[in-house]
Amino acid sequence: MIIVFKPNTSDEDIKFIENKVIEHGYVPKLIHGESRTVIGAVGDETMHESLEMLQTLPMIEKVIPIQKRYKLVSREYHGDPTAFAVGAGNMIGAGDFLMIAGPCSVENREQLDTATRDIVASGVKVLRGGAYKPRTSPYDFQGLGQEGLDLLQEMKDKYGVAIVTEIVGVPHVEDVAAVADVLQIGARNCQNYHLLETVAAVNTPVLLKRGMATTVQEWLAAAEYLIVHGCERVILCERGIRTFENATRSTLDLSAVAVAKRETHLPVIVDPSHAAGRVDLVLPLAKAAIAVGADGLIVETHPTPAEACSDAAQQIPSADFGVFMDELRPLIDLCCRKPAQ
Amino acid sequence: MIIVFKPNTSDEDIKFIENKVIEHGYVPKLIHGESRTVIGAVGDETMHESLEMLQTLPMIEKVIPIQKRYKLVSREYHGDPTAFAVGAGNMIGAGDFLMIAGPCSVENREQLDTATRDIVASGVKVLRGGAYKPRTSPYDFQGLGQEGLDLLQEMKDKYGVAIVTEIVGVPHVEDVAAVADVLQIGARNCQNYHLLETVAAVNTPVLLKRGMATTVQEWLAAAEYLIVHGCERVILCERGIRTFENATRSTLDLSAVAVAKRETHLPVIVDPSHAAGRVDLVLPLAKAAIAVGADGLIVETHPTPAEACSDAAQQIPSADFGVFMDELRPLIDLCCRKPAQ
Amino acid sequence: MIIVFKPNTSDEDIKFIENKVIEHGYVPKLIHGESRTVIGAVGDETMHESLEMLQTLPMIEKVIPIQKRYKLVSREYHGDPTAFAVGAGNMIGAGDFLMIAGPCSVENREQLDTATRDIVASGVKVLRGGAYKPRTSPYDFQGLGQEGLDLLQEMKDKYGVAIVTEIVGVPHVEDVAAVADVLQIGARNCQNYHLLETVAAVNTPVLLKRGMATTVQEWLAAAEYLIVHGCERVILCERGIRTFENATRSTLDLSAVAVAKRETHLPVIVDPSHAAGRVDLVLPLAKAAIAVGADGLIVETHPTPAEACSDAAQQIPSADFGVFMDELRPLIDLCCRKPAQ
Amino acid sequence: MIIVFKPNTSDEDIKFIENKVIEHGYVPKLIHGESRTVIGAVGDETMHESLEMLQTLPMIEKVIPIQKRYKLVSREYHGDPTAFAVGAGNMIGAGDFLMIAGPCSVENREQLDTATRDIVASGVKVLRGGAYKPRTSPYDFQGLGQEGLDLLQEMKDKYGVAIVTEIVGVPHVEDVAAVADVLQIGARNCQNYHLLETVAAVNTPVLLKRGMATTVQEWLAAAEYLIVHGCERVILCERGIRTFENATRSTLDLSAVAVAKRETHLPVIVDPSHAAGRVDLVLPLAKAAIAVGADGLIVETHPTPAEACSDAAQQIPSADFGVFMDELRPLIDLCCRKPAQ
Repeated sequence: MIIVFKPNTSDEDIKFIENKVIEHGYVPKLIHGESRTVIGAVGDETMHESLEMLQTLPMIEKVIPIQKRYKLVSREYHGDPTAFAVGAGNMIGAGDFLMIAGPCSVENREQLDTATRDIVASGVKVLRGGAYKPRTSPYDFQGLGQEGLDLLQEMKDKYGVAIVTEIVGVPHVEDVAAVADVLQIGARNCQNYHLLETVAAVNTPVLLKRGMATTVQEWLAAAEYLIVHGCERVILCERGIRTFENATRSTLDLSAVAVAKRETHLPVIVDPSHAAGRVDLVLPLAKAAIAVGADGLIVETHPTPAEACSDAAQQIPSADFGVFMDELRPLIDLCCRKPAQ
Repeated sequence: MIIVFKPNTSDEDIKFIENKVIEHGYVPKLIHGESRTVIGAVGDETMHESLEMLQTLPMIEKVIPIQKRYKLVSREYHGDPTAFAVGAGNMIGAGDFLMIAGPCSVENREQLDTATRDIVASGVKVLRGGAYKPRTSPYDFQGLGQEGLDLLQEMKDKYGVAIVTEIVGVPHVEDVAAVADVLQIGARNCQNYHLLETVAAVNTPVLLKRGMATTVQEWLAAAEYLIVHGCERVILCERGIRTFENATRSTLDLSAVAVAKRETHLPVIVDPSHAAGRVDLVLPLAKAAIAVGADGLIVETHPTPAEACSDAAQQIPSADFGVFMDELRPLIDLCCRKPAQ
Repeated sequence: MIIVFKPNTSDEDIKFIENKVIEHGYVPKLIHGESRTVIGAVGDETMHESLEMLQTLPMIEKVIPIQKRYKLVSREYHGDPTAFAVGAGNMIGAGDFLMIAGPCSVENREQLDTATRDIVASGVKVLRGGAYKPRTSPYDFQGLGQEGLDLLQEMKDKYGVAIVTEIVGVPHVEDVAAVADVLQIGARNCQNYHLLETVAAVNTPVLLKRGMATTVQEWLAAAEYLIVHGCERVILCERGIRTFENATRSTLDLSAVAVAKRETHLPVIVDPSHAAGRVDLVLPLAKAAIAVGADGLIVETHPTPAEACSDAAQQIPSADFGVFMDELRPLIDLCCRKPAQ
Repeated sequence: MIIVFKPNTSDEDIKFIENKVIEHGYVPKLIHGESRTVIGAVGDETMHESLEMLQTLPMIEKVIPIQKRYKLVSREYHGDPTAFAVGAGNMIGAGDFLMIAGPCSVENREQLDTATRDIVASGVKVLRGGAYKPRTSPYDFQGLGQEGLDLLQEMKDKYGVAIVTEIVGVPHVEDVAAVADVLQIGARNCQNYHLLETVAAVNTPVLLKRGMATTVQEWLAAAEYLIVHGCERVILCERGIRTFENATRSTLDLSAVAVAKRETHLPVIVDPSHAAGRVDLVLPLAKAAIAVGADGLIVETHPTPAEACSDAAQQIPSADFGVFMDELRPLIDLCCRKPAQ
């Protein structure tokens, strides 16, 4: 930590702060600058208490952290990329690219079966589909709940797909985990730490979406919660952030993918469907995500988007999903170390 | 809803959409424009299904909602301002201004007792204090939990203050509700709909903070969840949004207070402490909040901010709280219909 | 400047950087931390070259400036608030509150005369009105140009008002300065440094609007350009920033007013009309601006807003301006050191 | 335009608005909805006056434009992609990919000569370099001015490269245009309409960077200014927008590239250097830009970045530029219709 004093601070006040620094377990190193005095507080900031509360004192101008507030997710702590299987043999990380696809919501057996059949025919082995849906309006479709989970289990049994599905509340954890190969934490719950802790304890892989106003630092700190509480198989998912631009639903932040790939050893995937909010942009954004170095994609597809219960505008007709995959494959082959699935 | 076709859409495609509109319970009204055809879909959009999924069809350029996606919170539905008591006789709404103060976190008996004594001496009758704290890093202080709730109960018994405290997870609802006069939903949980539904069922007043990337529309839709699920006594709280500006922790959006006061009948208060993130701005922002028409304030104060476990930089020393209140009172008297408490 | 090395940097690399620091005129002070080594580079950062280019070297993690990049605008350099007259005897700063009002654009003699008459009758002595308008679409009304300036001169002669008008291009500087008592730099030109330099040379007071994506630091650095190039009478004007919220045209950032009042000695005013973009919010936001400590307001008013050539939705009918002022006066009296004009 | 009335508007008020709509040259079409009445105002909104000023009237809830506020830049108006040469034979658009590279600022002959030699050796034929630099602080290096232009001319003569250089003020237009093959409008001047009009009149190709808070709609409207004032050869350049995220200097908005490619016939390129602000992200972002469908890139490279006068942290060492290009070429070959230069 660097502690910057206001100009003309008395020696007495500086001494007082030096003692505070020592009290908190750091070693103070004093630098007298041109117009300001600075203390370098030496110690491990990651696991230690922050000194930022000193900022409140009248003689302090600011306190600047030097280290990040996470450790277990960092490349410094764990140099090699983390890789693991989703379901039976669908590897992600360390050069393996994972494609996840399916409808936004599970709506009924026919819809889910058609979508699953279509993605499987396109070579995709991991199905997404929401049984519990967080919706902005209480009057919108809220998901089928347990009935949706049962339908996902049917698809798993029939097509051998692995399942990714969202978890929105602690009481559903057990039931969702009974079906899911990956537990999805949605953007609105990215910093719902209570949910993160509970989900982490299950020890199923977790897909952690970045929140709409979550910095990369906060996103990684949320992933740190997961690891601290027992989940080592975490997939980070960038899905767009809130900005002033309204040509798209969110602004896909592919720089964040590149930053996260450098900062952490965890696999990072991209959701171009929610970011765009419109189907015509899903293909170019999916390509950009592959090129920037993502370890996978999660894409929405639906047999009849115009009849979808949620997020209709961004779902690819599942009959066209094969063509979509054909467009992506050469790029996956070029950009990933190992060939596309 | 207004449905805008792409230029040169065939009559057949227009007919197809007209039928879709009818299927969803709306009456289609056709307008042929200069370069585009438009359908006005007549019907109650609030409680009805949205037609936005039509946007996915190739002949549609966009679908524009006319009505908002909430009803019970709106002034259109409920013209008079909602007013109610917090604890015994501390009214909020319809001209009554409510001041809430206290430390960010409950840390120990001495800290909480001093803070409470100081705010009560300043004329404040509602105490805030976090027993469960959502923190960005898993290595930061997470709150005292049940021990914190017990200390809040002690203050209630000793000083007669009403209690506002945050709820971060469904399993704590019962215990928190046993102590709290107002259940606080924090910014990170503003769109945690599962938590909102559970908390609403308790029928204790709820203070709903706006999320960091939540639009006013989404914030009001979150309040709609509370009313739909049984909680009629909702306090909205603006606490700053995420923007590019970093001179302050968040950007306090006082326009949102003015907008919310026009759109809804619910009381709206402001948290200048979290917005600013620095103590020197709390007074001017508190004044601005009163002037813009807020129904109350929630302000952080601590006996010794430089030793606080969380958010130290933004807490007013509680010994100075009387002076702070003295600065605000003339403004409250001028701007509220009824005199300050 | 604080220079942070990556973990495990060699002594040779640290020595190399120490020499670089010395080359640039700073004195290096070394601190060996827990996981990282840090150099404190001592020297006056304000007028010196930045060391941020060192960030590009492979052994450097980051370079953190300690001082701000402006000097002449700062309170550290100039402790007392700057105050000056706009036109004849309309003081601003150091407790004097200045009200500026008038139509968005000058449209014709009748419109401008009615608006001027109405604001003068309300006690306002400074008229705003655009002769040159920066408009998003080339098909929108671009202002009357010289004819508009002539009409402003007529009002000055007839009513004795001082004139504030915008300057959008270097070729107009002389003609605008012949009429204007204050030269306005609009939000889109806040960082048009070439225009700032040219306008500063005229030595007429300048009203510098904050850009829509300009941080407070950058805004003050833009003001530093004005002072460096000869203009000492600068008025800062907050008019809202771009955020994700669309209930208002921009998000009025009143914290920025409070920050600017602390950082600089210059007067700071607020434009609630452009921020809100809707007339019903202008009064509450004007009140909030006064309460937060602004030194003045610039408000749009028009005889017949529904016929305005630009920004119609945010202009107060000028016949109602007296009522508007009556609402503000008690607050100005309460919040400013000297009574309202 | 769609004009939405407030609930319970009288027939008289509706009649009044119908007449207003007719006065402005539109044909009103009335729809009586469930809770609101709506007028569809039929007419060409692009070239016509907006009706948004009606929003100011007490009976109007909102006015919603249906068409965009630009025409000449749109695909609707001009279906085929625009393609043209930059300098002698360096095509851009319609499948031709253009690479532009060079230092942020022209600093001296040796620096510029080395950078030019290195990019030419890497197969790049278009040199960028700033002679006039818009800098946030008046104490930062402001560019060599005419001396910089002379050095760019030397490189043109010696290496046969085409020149892209920024123009920051109207008085420099002639001198810059004498050297430049493409006139660059920087992000801070994207909505400096006066400069756009002057530059457009020269009839040299213009590279228009998107402003930091400019929506895609506003960016295209700025390009419309260029075409309206005589410049048909416009290159759009996305360079990142301002958001809350600070891991990167700006947030590169690649969705905006995909949107702009659909909305307009103009070529769209990407500046990954300014967006990232750090050299380690330039390669992945450049790849993503190619994959999303950009028509070219503008990348910063410098012989010795650690000694650069501006933006050091984001410049690739020019000795490494050949390796950088080798990484991009297979992707350009895959994603563009025609092979990379």
